[in-house]
Amino acid sequence: MIAPLSMTVPLGERAYSIHVGAGLLRDATWLAGLLRARKVAVVTNAVVAPLYAANIRAARAGGETHDIVLPDGESHKTLATATKIFDALLEHRFARDDLIVALGGGVVGDMAGFAAACYQRGIAFVQIPTTLLAQVDSSVGGKTGVNHPLGKNMIGAFHQPRAVVIDIDTLRSLPLRELRAGLAEVVKYGLICDADFFAWLERNAERLLALDSETLMYAVHRCCSIKAEIVVRDEHEQGDRALLNLGHTFGHAIENTTGYSRWLHGEAVAAGLRMAASMSERAGLMDKADLLRIESLLQQLGLRTDARGELSPAAAHAAMSLDKKVKAGRVRLILMRGIGRAFVTDDYAEETLAATLEAHLA
Amino acid sequence: MIAPLSMTVPLGERAYSIHVGAGLLRDATWLAGLLRARKVAVVTNAVVAPLYAANIRAARAGGETHDIVLPDGESHKTLATATKIFDALLEHRFARDDLIVALGGGVVGDMAGFAAACYQRGIAFVQIPTTLLAQVDSSVGGKTGVNHPLGKNMIGAFHQPRAVVIDIDTLRSLPLRELRAGLAEVVKYGLICDADFFAWLERNAERLLALDSETLMYAVHRCCSIKAEIVVRDEHEQGDRALLNLGHTFGHAIENTTGYSRWLHGEAVAAGLRMAASMSERAGLMDKADLLRIESLLQQLGLRTDARGELSPAAAHAAMSLDKKVKAGRVRLILMRGIGRAFVTDDYAEETLAATLEAHLA
Repeated sequence: MIAPLSMTVPLGERAYSIHVGAGLLRDATWLAGLLRARKVAVVTNAVVAPLYAANIRAARAGGETHDIVLPDGESHKTLATATKIFDALLEHRFARDDLIVALGGGVVGDMAGFAAACYQRGIAFVQIPTTLLAQVDSSVGGKTGVNHPLGKNMIGAFHQPRAVVIDIDTLRSLPLRELRAGLAEVVKYGLICDADFFAWLERNAERLLALDSETLMYAVHRCCSIKAEIVVRDEHEQGDRALLNLGHTFGHAIENTTGYSRWLHGEAVAAGLRMAASMSERAGLMDKADLLRIESLLQQLGLRTDARGELSPAAAHAAMSLDKKVKAGRVRLILMRGIGRAFVTDDYAEETLAATLEAHLA
Repeated sequence: MIAPLSMTVPLGERAYSIHVGAGLLRDATWLAGLLRARKVAVVTNAVVAPLYAANIRAARAGGETHDIVLPDGESHKTLATATKIFDALLEHRFARDDLIVALGGGVVGDMAGFAAACYQRGIAFVQIPTTLLAQVDSSVGGKTGVNHPLGKNMIGAFHQPRAVVIDIDTLRSLPLRELRAGLAEVVKYGLICDADFFAWLERNAERLLALDSETLMYAVHRCCSIKAEIVVRDEHEQGDRALLNLGHTFGHAIENTTGYSRWLHGEAVAAGLRMAASMSERAGLMDKADLLRIESLLQQLGLRTDARGELSPAAAHAAMSLDKKVKAGRVRLILMRGIGRAFVTDDYAEETLAATLEAHLA
């Protein structure tokens, strides 16, 4: 394997390490050190289990290990599915000092993390994300949760993992469409606070799509570093952490209204990034040139950003007003003063928002 | 009203006040100060709502307020009932800066608190406990949760309230059986670490049962102070907080095996306190004289402590091994070196435990 790039998320007694490497899951000895516990529950799904569950077994070397295999897909990210995890943990008599491993994409990580947060009021879990989206976003930072028919991630908890293991070799088993969707979140980090990284992405888009190991490791590591820095500043999303939702308020409205099926999360985020950029330009905050660079990079990465005909501007506005970032009745938005200069605001003209929704959806 | 006795639970950014008084719920102006929010959801049950929900409305003075009325009883303390709270919060579009009020006994408080912990990953809640059990125990310290068919409080979260309002006048509407059950938890605090308080209880048992206001206020305040002190030392139950479970490992086994119906929680705790005392005496840790004082006070308070015929010693042992205090496969117990000198241990002879279960259950 290529030696992993490691970093620490310095959250005091909740501090943990993130390891980004190629081939980490095949190194049973290395992995064993992170999976020490009397009992381990591997929460995974029907697609990922046949690919990587055996790697966890190998690292456990005969220690008591149970696979909890969930159905695949965002539509199963519900309290009912979480209940199945609780049932299995109780049947196997898991105690507070046992361990959950989340092996899969964001849905698995969010649900396994939520189950870990709530089982006996909190047990440890290790994130082993196998999609790019989960590797650069949901596996880091301790946000866990499930969806509700009336809104995404409406039920959840903040619960930091004990460690995050990112093996970029797992991306070789990922459908290209999901890889592209994950790259939308990668672009997001450049847009939030790192113009140099954005420019690096413009130069390296092809290498990323070609799954070049060093290029992927660098990109994933850079995203995790930015995310960790923001999470440490604002663990419970009272302020700066909302920056990570750049593109998500628009994106959630698309997913929410179209039923989480036609759009992958990252695809909806790509469309949302474009709308946030477009609104920033419309509000006179950002140059047209930056808007064009953003649209061009998203296109270069093969991302669909046109949501026209998918939902009405009115439906989008209604869905946005149920967003968790609503404060005192007003939707807060993340806009940009330029590439790498995102900020949170509720000081915007309703007409600019309406015109943006109109331009992109009507 | 009698001026409340107030104290602060110093948990840093999660610090909050506990107010113990007589007539607090009738003082709308005073109460209003603690219930400031754009929207308030009053989680309560069918028994308590007709008695006190109007007091909350009065304090809200026309501010948006929704009652979420749950069915009464421990058998409804489930994830399914918690889901109803989530549904209502979403229907009424509650945001992260809105407020939940838990108005009722321990079941209401645990469920409302759990819903507050998980709704949008955490919103504020105020505890207004209306049973003695909830006033001296569950409303303070941030433990929230629901039961699972395979174990009590197996799904939950640590989530501290924003404030706790204890109006001992609510005890006048409480059935005597529940008052007595609550007194078992009061006795527990004396046994854990306050021999003087235990002696005070021996002298004031009659006044407590007669609902004398000053006596009740003193007792409730003393219990909350002791609990707050222990919670501050160990918020997430890594060590000392387990002391609060004195009598509970035995008690949970009784409740769990008899289906949470025949025994009130406090009654099971009373039986558990007696068993913990009996085991401590059997192990040569505590004098016979202390054991007799404990049995005598529980009897004076009218508490049933005999669980003979309710469950077999083997069933009790099996239920205990599923307790959350299990560490590395061994049940930790809270035993006593005397009244006011409880300690957590897994260093005990299995035969002493077996003999205790045998003596009290066979």
